[in-house]
Amino acid sequence: MVSNGLILIFGNNDAPMNCPANTYKFRQDSSFLYFFAQHRDRLVGVIDADSGQEWLIGDEIDIDDIVWFGSVKSVGELAAEAGVEHHAPMAHLAELVNEALKKRRRIHFLPPYRFDTQIQIMDLLNIHPSKQKEAASFPLIQAVVKLRSVKSLEEIEELERAATIGHKMHTTAMRLCRPGVTEQYIGGQIDGIAASYGCIVSFQSIVTMHGEIMHGNPSPRALEAGRLMLCDAGAETNENYCSDNTRTTPISGKYTQRQKEIYQIVVDCHDLALDVAKPGVRWWDVHFDVCRLMTNRLKELGLMKGDTEEALRAGAHALFLPHGLGHMMGLDVHDMEGLGQIHVGFDEETRPSTQFGTGSLRMGRKLEEGFVVTDEPGIYFIPDLIDYWKAEGINKDFINFEKVETYKDFGGIRIEDDVLITKDGCRFLGNERIPYHIKEVEDFLESRDNQ
Amino acid sequence: MVSNGLILIFGNNDAPMNCPANTYKFRQDSSFLYFFAQHRDRLVGVIDADSGQEWLIGDEIDIDDIVWFGSVKSVGELAAEAGVEHHAPMAHLAELVNEALKKRRRIHFLPPYRFDTQIQIMDLLNIHPSKQKEAASFPLIQAVVKLRSVKSLEEIEELERAATIGHKMHTTAMRLCRPGVTEQYIGGQIDGIAASYGCIVSFQSIVTMHGEIMHGNPSPRALEAGRLMLCDAGAETNENYCSDNTRTTPISGKYTQRQKEIYQIVVDCHDLALDVAKPGVRWWDVHFDVCRLMTNRLKELGLMKGDTEEALRAGAHALFLPHGLGHMMGLDVHDMEGLGQIHVGFDEETRPSTQFGTGSLRMGRKLEEGFVVTDEPGIYFIPDLIDYWKAEGINKDFINFEKVETYKDFGGIRIEDDVLITKDGCRFLGNERIPYHIKEVEDFLESRDNQ
Repeated sequence: MVSNGLILIFGNNDAPMNCPANTYKFRQDSSFLYFFAQHRDRLVGVIDADSGQEWLIGDEIDIDDIVWFGSVKSVGELAAEAGVEHHAPMAHLAELVNEALKKRRRIHFLPPYRFDTQIQIMDLLNIHPSKQKEAASFPLIQAVVKLRSVKSLEEIEELERAATIGHKMHTTAMRLCRPGVTEQYIGGQIDGIAASYGCIVSFQSIVTMHGEIMHGNPSPRALEAGRLMLCDAGAETNENYCSDNTRTTPISGKYTQRQKEIYQIVVDCHDLALDVAKPGVRWWDVHFDVCRLMTNRLKELGLMKGDTEEALRAGAHALFLPHGLGHMMGLDVHDMEGLGQIHVGFDEETRPSTQFGTGSLRMGRKLEEGFVVTDEPGIYFIPDLIDYWKAEGINKDFINFEKVETYKDFGGIRIEDDVLITKDGCRFLGNERIPYHIKEVEDFLESRDNQ
Repeated sequence: MVSNGLILIFGNNDAPMNCPANTYKFRQDSSFLYFFAQHRDRLVGVIDADSGQEWLIGDEIDIDDIVWFGSVKSVGELAAEAGVEHHAPMAHLAELVNEALKKRRRIHFLPPYRFDTQIQIMDLLNIHPSKQKEAASFPLIQAVVKLRSVKSLEEIEELERAATIGHKMHTTAMRLCRPGVTEQYIGGQIDGIAASYGCIVSFQSIVTMHGEIMHGNPSPRALEAGRLMLCDAGAETNENYCSDNTRTTPISGKYTQRQKEIYQIVVDCHDLALDVAKPGVRWWDVHFDVCRLMTNRLKELGLMKGDTEEALRAGAHALFLPHGLGHMMGLDVHDMEGLGQIHVGFDEETRPSTQFGTGSLRMGRKLEEGFVVTDEPGIYFIPDLIDYWKAEGINKDFINFEKVETYKDFGGIRIEDDVLITKDGCRFLGNERIPYHIKEVEDFLESRDNQ
């Protein structure tokens, strides 16, 4: 879709943590990986869309680098591996760009999310970092989204590998989940599994008694009997393909009656998505099928009231489910999020919503064979949000606030798995399911000491 | 030492990993922690050096933030906790700065290492990122180095806590060290311990059969019988104080005769530093005491030759020890490295060297009570460096290249512990030593299955 101009695909560099040289674990840019498959820092890929010529740009290492970081392949060798004809030192990048600018050719780049890349683009193209997102190339974004959305067989194999690591992370978290163990301890142990069997967590692990906080980092608090532990975590393989699962485990080993009632709704919503998702169906509609079921069931419990369809249109269910049913997954856990969710999850037929809740749906468009999406319904009781809606009278015709008030100490439940859209339906990724049906979970916890 | 002007201490922000919102684990800036002790992102501390007025600058969170990240304290509450009188939203920062600039007052800031902070400084002060290191305030750097160099009792307690986590990491690595286990598996397990008991690794764990690569990341390779596994790793406590230790473990459970000969030299060098380090002694001299012992012992093995003092002056020992004996440690593993090693480790009396090897000594100046330094001698056989020196004839009067050639498959050995300078001497941090004397290590490995 990019028929002319010069395309720059920036690789990532090491990211300083607390000093220039004390860096986080290196994570290559996903689009760079997709096109050039090289895991080294300080590389830029250049494609001339008119001539088809390609360059891998990067500086060679010297003897000091070898002493500190070991001997590595030359940039020429990396280019050959990537099937790229030309290679050149970093100083050549400005020459290529300046030459193209002189000829008034378009320079295409993806929206940069690393601030060092933003500085590099500012120096090359004289665009302030705050203006680069809008200066990024829409045709290039479209082309990349089209390619990366549909996963090849090799990519699916990598995603299955990630799922296997995810299974190990979550069954470990469930095995460790007992009163007195800290959230941080469990979070650390599963981070360790991700790094032992893969290379890094696909996002910061969420391990919390406060499942009602969507992104609750593990705290040094000890788990308390009677509460639920929500664990949302995933791994990346050495090739940086992701997994992303959530389980909500009873810290005492058994769900209480009240927990069971809410948990079973989430299970049924989770399973419903699997029944209806297939090529040609809009993920938007799967999301609303789930919201419809959830609303009806919350009405049965007396937490919601009124006409279901009216409640859905008003977004009343978002008090309990303030996020979307799921997102694309691949080389990024929120796949291609950096390219702009509107380009990744939506199209001319399906536009994003601005309503609270539905506005957080990251994906709405029609499913295609080879898409990978997460299926992650949840029900949360968020005290601040309940207070706010109640005080403002928001959706008061559909919410039974008196009853909801009694759930303020409940926390939150989410169940999440990764779904591959197949030719005529869909299936969960991963050979073995992490237990999630009530009986499975309780049986697992009962028998864990014998495993 | 900063008697006038406006001091800006930038806190860190979340660092994007592979998408804008998929970030690495948050790590606050160490100087910001030292002065303001707040772990939240997007804060800036401002001190008016003339009036003594202080501000904590940051924006309050809204209901969306609460849903996603939980309810948190207000900026005013954080300021009160930090003993700071004023607080203001981020938009106020530019006002404070512009007002000071109008009055031609000096704006002091520390050298920024996060690229988003560089962009923020560029927008505030119109200084390009590439010019900010030299535009940083020397008086402010000096003041911060003076304060942070000497550790208080509370800081030492935190460092002892970090040492306890480090002990657990290293004894776990030693317990897991067997033929067939991958470097990556062990690296992941100890990363997990750091995150379980502290908050994060103090630097990327080094777990490698190739100890001769100074910063060798764990690979998916399986450990091989007969070789050595070098593990250099540390943790940060929840308050971000660090540990940093290295052990070199025989994968088969026993050191070979050749390994013992080299290993014992490193042990003796390690212990020597502990004998000579005390207030008033230059760390430069401790480094050279160690290099002297190492050179004499390598001469006994026939790897070096000629006059020891001449060899030291020529830097011949750096073929085997291309780095310094150690560095300051505290809130950063290389403490204050971002402020410039020349300001942290050197003074008018002791200047850094440009010679290969000695040039990597990060600390040279006189020790004071309350300093914490790492003691980390090593001996490495780096094939590329050996080839290079041999081909160029570098230090050929002091190196027995023929003998050295036979060690090209040896790898490298390092032993590292963290040393607190006391009133009249020094001591290792940590209540319990990670085994490092030959018999201790072999006994530990022998009995590990019974532990």
